[in-house]
Amino acid sequence: MPKSTFQEIILKLQQFWADHGCLIAQPYYTQVGAGTMNPATFLRVLGPEPWNTAYVEPSVRPDDGRYGENPNRFQLHTQYQVILKPDPGNPQELYLDSLKALGIDPLKHDIRFVEDNWEQPAISAWGLGWEVWLDGQEITQFTYFQQMGGVTLDPVSVEITYGLERILIALNNAKAIWDEPWGANVRYGDIRQREEFEHSKYYFETADIGRVRKMYDLYSAEADVCLAAGLVLPAHDYVLKCSHAFNILDTRGAISVAERQAFFKRMRALARGVAEAYVGQREELGFPLLKEATPKEAIQPTFPEAVAGPADCVLEIGVEELPADDITTGVESLRKAFEDEVLAAHGLAHSALQVFGTPRRLVVLVSELAAREPDSQVELRGPPESAAFDKEGKPTQALLGWARKNQIDLPSEELTRDRLVQELTGGRYVTWRKGNLGSPTPSLLATLIPNVISRIKFEKSMRWNASGVSFSRPIRWMVAMYGETVIPFQYAGVPSGSTTRGLRPNDSPPIEIRSAGQYLDEMQRAGIVLGADQRKASIREQVQRAASFMGAEALLEEDLLAEVANLVEKPTAVLGNFNAAFLQLPREVLVSVMKKQQRYFPIEKDGKLMPNFVAIRNGDDQYLDLVQQGNEHVLGARFADADFFVREDLKQPLEAYRPQLEGLTFHTKLGSMLDKTGRIQKLVNDLIPMLGLEKAEAVFARRAASLCKADLVTKMVTEMTSLQGVIGREYALRAEEDQAVAEAIGEQYQATPRSQAGLAVALADRLDSLVGLFGVGLAPTGTKDPFGLRRAALGIVQPLLEHEREMDLAKAIGKAAKVQPVAVGARGQAEVLDFIAVRLAVLLKDAGHRYDVVDAVLAEQAANPAGAARSVEQLQAWVGREDWKTILPAFARCVRITRDQKKTFSLDPKALTEQAEKDLFRALQKAETALRAAARRDPDALLEAFVPMIPAVNGFFEKVLVMEKSKAVRENRLGLLQRIAGLARGIADPSKLEGF
Amino acid sequence: MPKSTFQEIILKLQQFWADHGCLIAQPYYTQVGAGTMNPATFLRVLGPEPWNTAYVEPSVRPDDGRYGENPNRFQLHTQYQVILKPDPGNPQELYLDSLKALGIDPLKHDIRFVEDNWEQPAISAWGLGWEVWLDGQEITQFTYFQQMGGVTLDPVSVEITYGLERILIALNNAKAIWDEPWGANVRYGDIRQREEFEHSKYYFETADIGRVRKMYDLYSAEADVCLAAGLVLPAHDYVLKCSHAFNILDTRGAISVAERQAFFKRMRALARGVAEAYVGQREELGFPLLKEATPKEAIQPTFPEAVAGPADCVLEIGVEELPADDITTGVESLRKAFEDEVLAAHGLAHSALQVFGTPRRLVVLVSELAAREPDSQVELRGPPESAAFDKEGKPTQALLGWARKNQIDLPSEELTRDRLVQELTGGRYVTWRKGNLGSPTPSLLATLIPNVISRIKFEKSMRWNASGVSFSRPIRWMVAMYGETVIPFQYAGVPSGSTTRGLRPNDSPPIEIRSAGQYLDEMQRAGIVLGADQRKASIREQVQRAASFMGAEALLEEDLLAEVANLVEKPTAVLGNFNAAFLQLPREVLVSVMKKQQRYFPIEKDGKLMPNFVAIRNGDDQYLDLVQQGNEHVLGARFADADFFVREDLKQPLEAYRPQLEGLTFHTKLGSMLDKTGRIQKLVNDLIPMLGLEKAEAVFARRAASLCKADLVTKMVTEMTSLQGVIGREYALRAEEDQAVAEAIGEQYQATPRSQAGLAVALADRLDSLVGLFGVGLAPTGTKDPFGLRRAALGIVQPLLEHEREMDLAKAIGKAAKVQPVAVGARGQAEVLDFIAVRLAVLLKDAGHRYDVVDAVLAEQAANPAGAARSVEQLQAWVGREDWKTILPAFARCVRITRDQKKTFSLDPKALTEQAEKDLFRALQKAETALRAAARRDPDALLEAFVPMIPAVNGFFEKVLVMEKSKAVRENRLGLLQRIAGLARGIADPSKLEGF
Repeated sequence: MPKSTFQEIILKLQQFWADHGCLIAQPYYTQVGAGTMNPATFLRVLGPEPWNTAYVEPSVRPDDGRYGENPNRFQLHTQYQVILKPDPGNPQELYLDSLKALGIDPLKHDIRFVEDNWEQPAISAWGLGWEVWLDGQEITQFTYFQQMGGVTLDPVSVEITYGLERILIALNNAKAIWDEPWGANVRYGDIRQREEFEHSKYYFETADIGRVRKMYDLYSAEADVCLAAGLVLPAHDYVLKCSHAFNILDTRGAISVAERQAFFKRMRALARGVAEAYVGQREELGFPLLKEATPKEAIQPTFPEAVAGPADCVLEIGVEELPADDITTGVESLRKAFEDEVLAAHGLAHSALQVFGTPRRLVVLVSELAAREPDSQVELRGPPESAAFDKEGKPTQALLGWARKNQIDLPSEELTRDRLVQELTGGRYVTWRKGNLGSPTPSLLATLIPNVISRIKFEKSMRWNASGVSFSRPIRWMVAMYGETVIPFQYAGVPSGSTTRGLRPNDSPPIEIRSAGQYLDEMQRAGIVLGADQRKASIREQVQRAASFMGAEALLEEDLLAEVANLVEKPTAVLGNFNAAFLQLPREVLVSVMKKQQRYFPIEKDGKLMPNFVAIRNGDDQYLDLVQQGNEHVLGARFADADFFVREDLKQPLEAYRPQLEGLTFHTKLGSMLDKTGRIQKLVNDLIPMLGLEKAEAVFARRAASLCKADLVTKMVTEMTSLQGVIGREYALRAEEDQAVAEAIGEQYQATPRSQAGLAVALADRLDSLVGLFGVGLAPTGTKDPFGLRRAALGIVQPLLEHEREMDLAKAIGKAAKVQPVAVGARGQAEVLDFIAVRLAVLLKDAGHRYDVVDAVLAEQAANPAGAARSVEQLQAWVGREDWKTILPAFARCVRITRDQKKTFSLDPKALTEQAEKDLFRALQKAETALRAAARRDPDALLEAFVPMIPAVNGFFEKVLVMEKSKAVRENRLGLLQRIAGLARGIADPSKLEGF
Repeated sequence: MPKSTFQEIILKLQQFWADHGCLIAQPYYTQVGAGTMNPATFLRVLGPEPWNTAYVEPSVRPDDGRYGENPNRFQLHTQYQVILKPDPGNPQELYLDSLKALGIDPLKHDIRFVEDNWEQPAISAWGLGWEVWLDGQEITQFTYFQQMGGVTLDPVSVEITYGLERILIALNNAKAIWDEPWGANVRYGDIRQREEFEHSKYYFETADIGRVRKMYDLYSAEADVCLAAGLVLPAHDYVLKCSHAFNILDTRGAISVAERQAFFKRMRALARGVAEAYVGQREELGFPLLKEATPKEAIQPTFPEAVAGPADCVLEIGVEELPADDITTGVESLRKAFEDEVLAAHGLAHSALQVFGTPRRLVVLVSELAAREPDSQVELRGPPESAAFDKEGKPTQALLGWARKNQIDLPSEELTRDRLVQELTGGRYVTWRKGNLGSPTPSLLATLIPNVISRIKFEKSMRWNASGVSFSRPIRWMVAMYGETVIPFQYAGVPSGSTTRGLRPNDSPPIEIRSAGQYLDEMQRAGIVLGADQRKASIREQVQRAASFMGAEALLEEDLLAEVANLVEKPTAVLGNFNAAFLQLPREVLVSVMKKQQRYFPIEKDGKLMPNFVAIRNGDDQYLDLVQQGNEHVLGARFADADFFVREDLKQPLEAYRPQLEGLTFHTKLGSMLDKTGRIQKLVNDLIPMLGLEKAEAVFARRAASLCKADLVTKMVTEMTSLQGVIGREYALRAEEDQAVAEAIGEQYQATPRSQAGLAVALADRLDSLVGLFGVGLAPTGTKDPFGLRRAALGIVQPLLEHEREMDLAKAIGKAAKVQPVAVGARGQAEVLDFIAVRLAVLLKDAGHRYDVVDAVLAEQAANPAGAARSVEQLQAWVGREDWKTILPAFARCVRITRDQKKTFSLDPKALTEQAEKDLFRALQKAETALRAAARRDPDALLEAFVPMIPAVNGFFEKVLVMEKSKAVRENRLGLLQRIAGLARGIADPSKLEGF
């Protein structure tokens, strides 16, 4: 078969989309990072006018430059962009047809729609959709735009962005782009490889930072001027130029984290300005492209006559590929809504209820569902007696009107006080018990189901058509049957019916369901595995089989398994290989790439990775070799990229990256990451004695602290941020640092570091962030927590609990405050402590402890989480004791009577007069002695000391009047009680406890 | 017929050129003024590698912005660019096929290749080719690139640049682009009209000059950095950005003439840097796209055996469309070469010789040419006797070698002194009379014709293929026949043959010529009018007929007629109309647009233009209505553009433009055009008395001087520089200036202003330019005269002659020197005067005056052209007189004997001793008296006074010895003669005259 050429692909797509009603536009005349930025998308998706377009867009992303060395990653890649506005109803099918036009047979490949939540903060835009994978390679982005330039889109636009180089690679089953033909007997590499080298070099090494900054400023100023003059397109041009200049600076490593925020804010404001001005302008022009809409005729559902029953009932919501998590959410939420609002609320008898989810359908199956709702009666309350009958006892108009409204059709002789009036709470009213005839199930469901569907909530949902309905992804068909009868309704513009669709690779063929009871059989016949658990089991089995075929084991993590099971309807495992030379790369890098980027299962033997992987394809086992090769090429390119980074990085030891942290801003007012590292080092020094680290551990902790952030400026971490720490650890080992130092570096990002050194570094890091960012007024508000401070607080509490390491957090916060470049006073420090305490409280309560117990302990011990946790355990046990109802009241009496006293009174034992008070004083002395002897200030010690005092306490209150008129006597007694109340100080606040 | 859409055109062209082996590239990602700047052209045409590409290029030219108001002129127009490298041999035919693919039937339209010498100084590039006109509309530029970025191209590339908007207009027979369909039911205007408005506004009004200047500087600096780092493509990108920034500044009116030079110099240097670096880089890579060339087999011509004769002979050089002037040059130069080097040099008997030229062929026809060259003999000289024979008289090796070399084949008994040695001037030599047998005419011509063709010289010529041959445009076929025999040779890679081609609109069908004598008939049958005069006559007749059809007269200028006659092979007149509203525009504007831009003949009635024109189409009269409409649309768009300018301009009176001249640099050292205007005003003041202007005229002259350059900054003149003065006059009238002032403004650019005021302004302007530019060292050298100073000098001389106005140029030059901002000393002023004198001499000689007479007069009267001219007339008459041979010798004797004397001697009449000298003295006194009485110092006065002296002169020399030994006597006599010689001073220098 002759190879496809680059230009053929383009010409075919142009023809395909032109034939499908698209306006063919041209690439934009200024550098853009994506076809989205071309005004043919960015502007035209705004406002109500319809717009269908397609065009090539060579897209420039400086930081993707690889000097022409990577097989499929470049600073310039060629997008083919399609916009369909409004949604034509079948954009995925159109897209798949376009792939066929290019010669991609879906049966021979694995084509998948993989969740992708597209977001572009620089232009205030977002949408939901997918990456389309061809044999593991992302070849297209498919998005339903929801917002652009800050403007909510109505109608929604479908954006399809093909990656043409990758499609060419896939079509020719090639490893890399460079030798593939462009056209006219010229290789792609002949045209572009040298360009890639030069532009990469320019962006990474040559571009003059000062000058490009100036360009940015000039562009930005011109954009303002244009906006002020109402010149939307010139303004947009300058926004694009800003964006490209920013990208150069970023690639050149010239943008600090804080600056990035400022840049984005500025660009976002400009983009919004452009978008809003455009919409205004179009409105002024009267939206010239808006065509007269032919109003759709509303479908009048014909309700079936009463049907025989019981019968099985099926509801299948056919969707475009749902995100893995949304399948789970959808199934749960559908089950609940169906159970509650259909079956229970209407008393519908049934046997089994099954709910399934796959990427393309959410299904409810009810077996033997009753044919109609049971009849029921309701008591209706009418007007009060006085208003219902006149003096002669005749019904008033008010009564007659009410009866009419409620369809109570009574002969007038029935309309009497005697028959209708009853004594109710609140007076005498007309009442009527009305019988409701139960509806036939099909028409009942026709009314209920739309409501049930609307109750399904997802983390993120989207609109797609004029119905305005939101869902995880568009609903494209619905099967709703009761026995052989279609339950007729319409939702999101889609009418229900009896036709479902088969597997994607088979072109989703229509499948007619003749009766609800046959649904499962039809699905099976179509090869669709409806149950997530079944799919998981099948995948687990297939992956293990593939691994054992290699005499090895698969790394089968539950998370990944669950996700993969929700990416397919018919899982088939594909065993693939990669170049063993890549095994030189850090294991975590390999695993990350395979699992996170590719959703592959790695394989290991004797704890060592093998050069193999298992991918799961959606479909059967035909042409598995092609699918395997495609996936291998993709993984090869991914590893080549990682290898590029690691090789570049390892040219220097980890230590050498530390000074470069200077260029990475932590926060404008808090300095660079180098500054932060310095603070962490000082804090670690402070924490070492507080945490009681041994000498050797202390040495490791200090070294780890100095290196802990160095990996942030390596290329590998810049590329895959999730590898921070992991890479630091790996590079530390390769630089022959102590193993313990390396581990500490790796552990700093873990919820609970295992090593002592790791603990010290992690705490120091987190304390520094909290204190510093609170200090500059960046405490989280509402649900916003851009700096992850809640997690940081939890990351202080949790390790202290798990290591059962007591520590004075207040003191630690004080130390952290001292090293900040900004002043953080007592009040600020207290806020941080409170903030941490809230996390601690949540943690303890989530662990099953009583909220009052937690509150009581934290009121006194928030600054020492480990101690507080121990105290909560103890106090909770006390609270559960039989005698608690004697203990708490006794202590409470002492506390209650004294707590409003502003003054602390001194106790003069000699001035005690009555026996009961003398007894109490002695009991107190014993308790105080016992408490001191216990040498622990915790609830056990406290209460064990206090319990013996209870008789004395009770005796005291029975016999002694505390509030004696004589001031001296009164105050002496109060002093005694205050000392008893004071026993709990630093342990718990009993007033927080239930029953106090 | 459904309308064509914009996107269809593009898709069809993409398919067409892809099918013809072109690589389809993409528009460039930064703003470019033309597809040429895309690296797929700019870089890839460099070096030896083959390259065929095609792509769309939306091209941005800010100053073409018309706010979306013009039908076919925009700041962004869409080019379709094709590069064929090397020349495929038939690029025009490929191009015409592509038009057919778009649905343009050449029979229904007038498709013309109109000379266009493409030059882009900003990138040191040039090429020759054409604008392609479709019914008068330029739809394509077609160029053979000769140089790019300062690098001479080998091979040459063919560039075809389609203007897609104009093609769409033409295809749909539309007036404007805006309502034409783009595709997907969207109008072109829906997409682009608002964009045009906004970008026009930005470029003309909003762009911040300071910021854009800074951008330019930043880009320029980055380009340098990239070049230094060997990064060709990034450097090129910045060159393009420089260029766009420059274009914005220019459109914004921020670039002065002097600055423009500097900008261009800088951009040129950058472009050269990029081009050279690219070539170096490709060379280093080993020119990877260079394919192994399959060497063409050299064609061995087979010479015909002797043919019967005499017979007619034809040579037709078939070419791609020649520029009009080159047809004339080609015909003349072919005639001369053929006459001299073929017919005369080889003594070939013949009857008539005819030479013809059309845009597509240069033809020589010789009737009854002899069948062979006459035999001839030559005398060969061999070695000297001493070297030719040894002592024994035997022939030496030297002799034998010589004989062999000269193919003298003698039996050894003939090799004797007696037979071979002759006495020649210089000694005794071997000689041999060798008979040359005349060659048969066909083989003789086969040898001579290539040489004849290579002797045809054009003002500009070009290379196009591997032969390296230069010609005005590519040679594509050659017919060369003697009788029925083909004269076999090859030139520029083209073999001769017997097949010519017919008319372009008929697809240039091959036409077989069976014998030379039939050639004319075949041409006539093909509808081709071979003779330029015949074509002119036909056009004149058709145009006049069309005009008289309107009851009017055509403006038939000879220049235009000659040009148009050389643009077609078969002229057919088309009468068209335009919107009469445009008649509001200044007549000169309308005429200029019609004649210069469109080559139409305007029509007038009673001296007023009518809203009609006559165009000449190449082809017959089919579908004339389509051709007419197309031409009408074009002219409408042109007039709309002119109207735009004039309307904009007339928002202010002419006077208001004067201050803006400040921004227009005349020359860096000589200031702005406003400065120049100031100098002109001062000089006019000086000239008024020198020219003897009347009072009223003086007032007009002063006012005209102050306004004379104001129109240079109007939009209309900026657009069509040739309208300078014309527009000034027009706008002056509309601003209600005096008619005489307006006329003077208009006349300043005319060779000879008619009015006195116009004369004064023109002289002041020209004197200022000459003196100023000489003063800063910019006197013309060699053939270079960038400031047109030769024309300026002529423009001083000619009006003075025509107005017969005597004036002291030396004084005027002094005045001009005084107002310059630089010092122009006596020497400089003298140089200017000499420079003017040379023009004057040329003028007078060209007018038919004897060179010696002119030289004699100018030696004394160069500073007063009018006086000099009168003197030349007079002297020439004297020189023609019978008695001149007595007059001149008499005067000459007096001059000759005295002219080497360094000293001027005083004459003491009393010391004269001999009668003859006394007589002479008396005669001199009489002559002096007569000369004074004549009160004119001109030849008539001089010679009328001198003639009576002649006997005395002759008597003196017969009888008196001037060089007497006595010093006193001698010097007294010399003094007498010096006084006689002095009579001619200020009138003429007789020593310059022939016969002196």
